Amino acid sequence: MSEKKIKVGIIGATGYAGQELARLLYTHPNAEVVWYGSRSYVNAPYSSVYGNMRDLADDNCKDDDIAALAEEADVIFTATPQGYLAGVLTEDVLSKAKVIDLSADFRLKDVSVYEKWYKIEHKSPNFLEEAVYGLCEVNREDIKKARLLANPGCFTTCSIESLYPLVKEHAIDPDTIIVDAKSGTSGAGRGAKTANLYCEVNESIKAYAVASHRHTPEIEEQLGYAYHAGDAEALAQPGGSPILINFTPHLVPMNRGILATCYAKLAEGMDAEKIAEIYNKYYGNEPFIRLLGEGGVPETRWVEGSNFLDIGFVIDERTGRIIVMGALDNMVKGAAGQAVQNMNLMFGLEETTGLLFPPVFP
Amino acid sequence: MSEKKIKVGIIGATGYAGQELARLLYTHPNAEVVWYGSRSYVNAPYSSVYGNMRDLADDNCKDDDIAALAEEADVIFTATPQGYLAGVLTEDVLSKAKVIDLSADFRLKDVSVYEKWYKIEHKSPNFLEEAVYGLCEVNREDIKKARLLANPGCFTTCSIESLYPLVKEHAIDPDTIIVDAKSGTSGAGRGAKTANLYCEVNESIKAYAVASHRHTPEIEEQLGYAYHAGDAEALAQPGGSPILINFTPHLVPMNRGILATCYAKLAEGMDAEKIAEIYNKYYGNEPFIRLLGEGGVPETRWVEGSNFLDIGFVIDERTGRIIVMGALDNMVKGAAGQAVQNMNLMFGLEETTGLLFPPVFP
Amino acid sequence: MSEKKIKVGIIGATGYAGQELARLLYTHPNAEVVWYGSRSYVNAPYSSVYGNMRDLADDNCKDDDIAALAEEADVIFTATPQGYLAGVLTEDVLSKAKVIDLSADFRLKDVSVYEKWYKIEHKSPNFLEEAVYGLCEVNREDIKKARLLANPGCFTTCSIESLYPLVKEHAIDPDTIIVDAKSGTSGAGRGAKTANLYCEVNESIKAYAVASHRHTPEIEEQLGYAYHAGDAEALAQPGGSPILINFTPHLVPMNRGILATCYAKLAEGMDAEKIAEIYNKYYGNEPFIRLLGEGGVPETRWVEGSNFLDIGFVIDERTGRIIVMGALDNMVKGAAGQAVQNMNLMFGLEETTGLLFPPVFP
Amino acid sequence: MSEKKIKVGIIGATGYAGQELARLLYTHPNAEVVWYGSRSYVNAPYSSVYGNMRDLADDNCKDDDIAALAEEADVIFTATPQGYLAGVLTEDVLSKAKVIDLSADFRLKDVSVYEKWYKIEHKSPNFLEEAVYGLCEVNREDIKKARLLANPGCFTTCSIESLYPLVKEHAIDPDTIIVDAKSGTSGAGRGAKTANLYCEVNESIKAYAVASHRHTPEIEEQLGYAYHAGDAEALAQPGGSPILINFTPHLVPMNRGILATCYAKLAEGMDAEKIAEIYNKYYGNEPFIRLLGEGGVPETRWVEGSNFLDIGFVIDERTGRIIVMGALDNMVKGAAGQAVQNMNLMFGLEETTGLLFPPVFP
Repeated sequence: MSEKKIKVGIIGATGYAGQELARLLYTHPNAEVVWYGSRSYVNAPYSSVYGNMRDLADDNCKDDDIAALAEEADVIFTATPQGYLAGVLTEDVLSKAKVIDLSADFRLKDVSVYEKWYKIEHKSPNFLEEAVYGLCEVNREDIKKARLLANPGCFTTCSIESLYPLVKEHAIDPDTIIVDAKSGTSGAGRGAKTANLYCEVNESIKAYAVASHRHTPEIEEQLGYAYHAGDAEALAQPGGSPILINFTPHLVPMNRGILATCYAKLAEGMDAEKIAEIYNKYYGNEPFIRLLGEGGVPETRWVEGSNFLDIGFVIDERTGRIIVMGALDNMVKGAAGQAVQNMNLMFGLEETTGLLFPPVFP
Repeated sequence: MSEKKIKVGIIGATGYAGQELARLLYTHPNAEVVWYGSRSYVNAPYSSVYGNMRDLADDNCKDDDIAALAEEADVIFTATPQGYLAGVLTEDVLSKAKVIDLSADFRLKDVSVYEKWYKIEHKSPNFLEEAVYGLCEVNREDIKKARLLANPGCFTTCSIESLYPLVKEHAIDPDTIIVDAKSGTSGAGRGAKTANLYCEVNESIKAYAVASHRHTPEIEEQLGYAYHAGDAEALAQPGGSPILINFTPHLVPMNRGILATCYAKLAEGMDAEKIAEIYNKYYGNEPFIRLLGEGGVPETRWVEGSNFLDIGFVIDERTGRIIVMGALDNMVKGAAGQAVQNMNLMFGLEETTGLLFPPVFP
Repeated sequence: MSEKKIKVGIIGATGYAGQELARLLYTHPNAEVVWYGSRSYVNAPYSSVYGNMRDLADDNCKDDDIAALAEEADVIFTATPQGYLAGVLTEDVLSKAKVIDLSADFRLKDVSVYEKWYKIEHKSPNFLEEAVYGLCEVNREDIKKARLLANPGCFTTCSIESLYPLVKEHAIDPDTIIVDAKSGTSGAGRGAKTANLYCEVNESIKAYAVASHRHTPEIEEQLGYAYHAGDAEALAQPGGSPILINFTPHLVPMNRGILATCYAKLAEGMDAEKIAEIYNKYYGNEPFIRLLGEGGVPETRWVEGSNFLDIGFVIDERTGRIIVMGALDNMVKGAAGQAVQNMNLMFGLEETTGLLFPPVFP
Repeated sequence: MSEKKIKVGIIGATGYAGQELARLLYTHPNAEVVWYGSRSYVNAPYSSVYGNMRDLADDNCKDDDIAALAEEADVIFTATPQGYLAGVLTEDVLSKAKVIDLSADFRLKDVSVYEKWYKIEHKSPNFLEEAVYGLCEVNREDIKKARLLANPGCFTTCSIESLYPLVKEHAIDPDTIIVDAKSGTSGAGRGAKTANLYCEVNESIKAYAVASHRHTPEIEEQLGYAYHAGDAEALAQPGGSPILINFTPHLVPMNRGILATCYAKLAEGMDAEKIAEIYNKYYGNEPFIRLLGEGGVPETRWVEGSNFLDIGFVIDERTGRIIVMGALDNMVKGAAGQAVQNMNLMFGLEETTGLLFPPVFP
């Protein structure tokens, strides 16, 4: 543990994810925020935007200026809309500061897939190859060496990590995967839209972006790598050989939390014991993944406010399917917490630094 | 419209479904409640249990006595735990009053299936054959002649009616059906259980009874009838030839509402237009089913407090699956409203009597 | 009851109060909506804005044109921002259609008080004298004769009617009145503001507009009339001799409902029995006021979706104060329901027509 | 900071307050829980009762045995029903371990007041004199020396600390104090009661225990000490000379948080500047009290999950009253957090140890 604290700049500090970064970094023993970037609130005290940070983060917000920020910070978090970072990233910035991007700009290796799903041009595809996909439990070693880190989406972290061991071990039929996901409303961001008003969300549930949600190709690409691991040909092109899945997000009247209910046909010869073994092999020693085993049913209340991902599963012998359920807090393990976990890895700190605290209940 | 009102008795009037019956019958022009049965609140004014009914239903609750009630009422609603009605039903009762059962006692034709899923002995299997399954839009003609009506479960109404036309027309592969359902908390009843306390349910979502929920065989039996319609052999035994599906209910922090997100592989040659045609064929004239068509996404807030079922669908060309979504209010179309709709049919009233009012929003 | 239905136009039909009018009028036996006015949604089907009205109100929205509307409608409801009606009202309009205004434009008799609290100029003070304040239980006879009706605010209806009998009978000291009110979030309207987003309102409570809420002078004026009834001098000037109170609204994470907790010193000689008698004298026969008596504690869940106002009280002998609590649904008795009740009175219908249905619970 | 950690035992560890203690102590650098006491869950892993503590607190729960516990622990927290600690406390226990009581057993100095409000006999009035009332910001020096600490109630902490400086400085008239308080539902505890079910609490607000809530005499006693400070005669008898106030708690549909809206007549000559000065004098350097000043409106969302108390005020010149608002998290500053703060003081640790983290939002 170094004496000197890591200097952190946040661009997009007044969105929900940015604020969660500020909250987590406040108690991080080896980091300090030196730049609260927010185009909308330039010169306003950060705590005037987020009253929870009163007395804790009263600095004024600064305008977005990644070049200036790179001079002051050791690491830059971008919690910004799609396209922002791709539009401003330079080799100069990366030579001075590590960058952890909470947007989707560098998650997909195939630029055409990005442009198809996000419907915007990618302004710096030249950095795509270098960018490391920051799913800590999967890509730990690459993350340690990264300069540019693509922090995974909230739905994707939950979906991929819930299914990854089964796909990697060919324990399920990848063509039968369906992920029915449910998210709290903070995932919709802090923009003032009628659809996200209290009275519109409260006392209701709906699916949205059915068969068209942007996290779909991200899940498909990463599960493709897992399924085809060792198959050089399948992995040759950018984005590898993605698996095709159905992914359906739902909006739930609660602030935080994602639950992914995943369905797939079990491969021949698989049973509860073998599935449990597979999960143990991959996640048995992971500090932030808690395995509930067969019959274990994760609930988002048990992970709220924390960096944990809880995974359980049930096998339906009648239909030959497995139902895997994963639960995490979309603001923490699904965004800011995983970003800090990545920062810890990138700076040679203990991976759990500043993140090992209990979920808040009730 | 007859001058004389139908005399209604409710056994189990102080559960949530019983209360919803009381609410709906209050404004029904051709019916009046003459007996609020509640073992737990005998001699207490009904409105002391449900403050919303103050000044509207101040009669004292009476003990459960189906024989005495049959003398006074034209129709008896039983909103009681599983096994109650099967334990007390007699030919004498049925000869004096029609019975509409909101429990599961007479929903499943195969007594062994009932006993396996409900884990209790069925005390009057002799009435199983006579009982009519009260899915109004499917069994309308049989319902009109019924003495004993099995009112469908909340999840089942939503799941079956969302999929029924597609299964009946063989537009989807029945072996690939997955129903991921989400329910408000009133479905859990008014029993004082820690798991249903405000702080336990609020700000959380979880699956429950995974691969073991009791509404599963009910959905499977009814969809089996639809799929095998015309196949006398398949329909020969009690319960027909059920389809096997995966059904996963989830508990959502809201009072009312069910959303069923249903997945299945489309049959060869099916497309959005044909699917829309099928739905129109079956439901185009239904007063309580509202078709949102392709891309239509039902939301429980738009049906809350009403007897409507909203259905929409999306086709995912990439995976060849259709995602059908159905939304209803579990207390109304999923319980008391459908029971009144059945009553209307059984007594020769206009089917929509007392039920055609807008959902309450917000 | 006339054969011919009252033709209703709603200006501001796509706000929450306008929508509630549409909902209530749908089941009203003697009225029909012929004009859904909405500047923001001109030519869009009304049910595309409010999915609950699908199949029930699919007409296209029309632009605001009160002159044209007056030709078509028997009554015009304006559920519009402050200042709108005052800016467009004419004698010609009033000569053709009755007008029921859900805004504050004609609630305060003293134009200077209006301009001070609302901070806008009043464009048609000439109609102030004619306008009748539509608190049905207080001003019933005047309402019957009104052409221009000022429908009271939600907080005001709850606060005034909870205290009115006690103030009128001088049973409490008017200088000691404090009203601590709590409102569901629909009262904040459907405008897209960050402060009203789900995640901002959920899991929190706050006071707002402390000592400066615009409903304060409305309560004060009306309670002044009650207190000084019979004192011609006190009543001589516009607005009479208002009482000064403290009024503090709070925002509660729920959709509907207002609870007013009112405090005052009891007058000499008052006790629970006398207080109960006073309430009975004024409200004993009111169809929409339910008296819970001493120790009765109203809860907003018991009035949700209905036109009822529930009132209870507790006397604290230790401090000599009475605590009066009133609960209503801000969208119904606090807005659209009372507006329809006023319409019934103004058109010679039974006052309860279309409004006597039970609250929706849960 | 000592090497050796304080050994902590919790009796009543499976109530909400007990669980919050477990959560806070998990990250406390100088304390560790060695005994999770829970009569209801003896021998069950603590994390099976509270899934958030999975992997963090998997020890089995133990039966209540304060004598045995006193041998093992340096400090005992009792988060138990009223009467428990008074029934088992002995000099022997106190000679071996410090005791911090989260119940009301030792909060009121006058045993007759306790017995009147709590309606149970006090079994060990002999310890009443020794017990220190643990309002950290008020009684800091006494707390440091305490063996037996009475941790204040949630409503009381919020109410007393919001008003304390004004009462102490005679800036308001104590006879006019009204506290209208609003609480999240976790304050009702984890007992399985119908009234606390999700569907009963959600979408509703109500007052309860009007003019009879047990926190009333606690507030009155402590404010009495403040008002009569220096008046030996007034303070002579047990419980001093309490002030009489009106206190009305309300149940709000949210998990955590208390907001106290307090009303009082300002003393002659008081204005906003002087009030602000008084608050600064008492709380300007307090680490857990955040002053929002005149016009500042606390919201419970800004303190959720934290040990902060936010205080703001508004002066209504029209009525001569001040409205003081205080907000805290009932589980933290209102219970477990203040208990840990007291522990820190009692063991000579930095007062903020383990408690200085940001509130969780959203």
